[in-house]
Amino acid sequence: MKYCPECGAPVSLCIPSGDHLPRSVCTRCGAIHYQNPKLVVGAIAEWDERILLCRRAIEPCLGRWTLPAGFMENGETTAEAAVRETLEEACATIALDDIFALIDLPHISQVHVFYRAHLLTPTFGPGEESLDVALVSPADIPWEQLAFRTVTLALRHYLADRESRQWTFHHDSVGWLVPS
Amino acid sequence: MKYCPECGAPVSLCIPSGDHLPRSVCTRCGAIHYQNPKLVVGAIAEWDERILLCRRAIEPCLGRWTLPAGFMENGETTAEAAVRETLEEACATIALDDIFALIDLPHISQVHVFYRAHLLTPTFGPGEESLDVALVSPADIPWEQLAFRTVTLALRHYLADRESRQWTFHHDSVGWLVPS
Repeated sequence: MKYCPECGAPVSLCIPSGDHLPRSVCTRCGAIHYQNPKLVVGAIAEWDERILLCRRAIEPCLGRWTLPAGFMENGETTAEAAVRETLEEACATIALDDIFALIDLPHISQVHVFYRAHLLTPTFGPGEESLDVALVSPADIPWEQLAFRTVTLALRHYLADRESRQWTFHHDSVGWLVPS
Repeated sequence: MKYCPECGAPVSLCIPSGDHLPRSVCTRCGAIHYQNPKLVVGAIAEWDERILLCRRAIEPCLGRWTLPAGFMENGETTAEAAVRETLEEACATIALDDIFALIDLPHISQVHVFYRAHLLTPTFGPGEESLDVALVSPADIPWEQLAFRTVTLALRHYLADRESRQWTFHHDSVGWLVPS
């Protein structure tokens, strides 16, 4: 941030009184502009024991496979975000079962949340951000072609829980502290 | 947002190509500025079967009691945020046990996350944003004087789980759809 979104004057980085971190503070109106982590929300959606995956049409990781997921919008719940992203990226209508995983990514200031879900009909197709969409059997998941480590983690937890017939909530952190 | 944080020119609200919601788009450099929900993270920290509560020194809800919690910062994990906020607001050092609850607040575009935790020593006191800090027995929780509905919800879940000796992860949504 170089300019104040409220008045358009330049901002400078300084630690406001009572604070402990440098913030972008307006040199004219004094407004303090905080920047905070973003939530990315997605779904592990099943139909007939197969999982809905999307092949990305955009960077990062163009051409790789991912779960339908994206940035949560203001005014919605995490559940609504998961349903919306699945509709947008995979043209699929899902019902959510339960919240399933939360993964911290401090190196990029993101938190990823995944829901378990199921398709209401076996109807799907690529949205604007997808090259292809498929229902994939666990044995056919393209592990080496997955887009993000959080997708790999969420799918591993999902298949392990499904195998043991015991669903639990999973919490992980990836990034600086974890070897890739 | 009225001005572009990148170049200082006025922004206008319009729906970018391929998008479905109005965004603040710069009238000069074309940068699209997204606004997303914020994460608030806190802790339910115990010592000797009592729970750490803070009396707020700031608005909103000045004078009411709350769990130590606050906005997550860029570059940290939810766990680090819970530990930091407890140190800042209650001058208490905690160890986290497990992630405990996630609560959606779509009406204010927030998501609240609470951890279960325990104090490492029975040392605490009011930080800059607290008037008072106390270890409170479950029977003495000032339910009518709690600051936020998410704090009430998290404490109710916590005490019920403790009573049943079975910790589970809780997910709720408060706001538009739920009568207060």
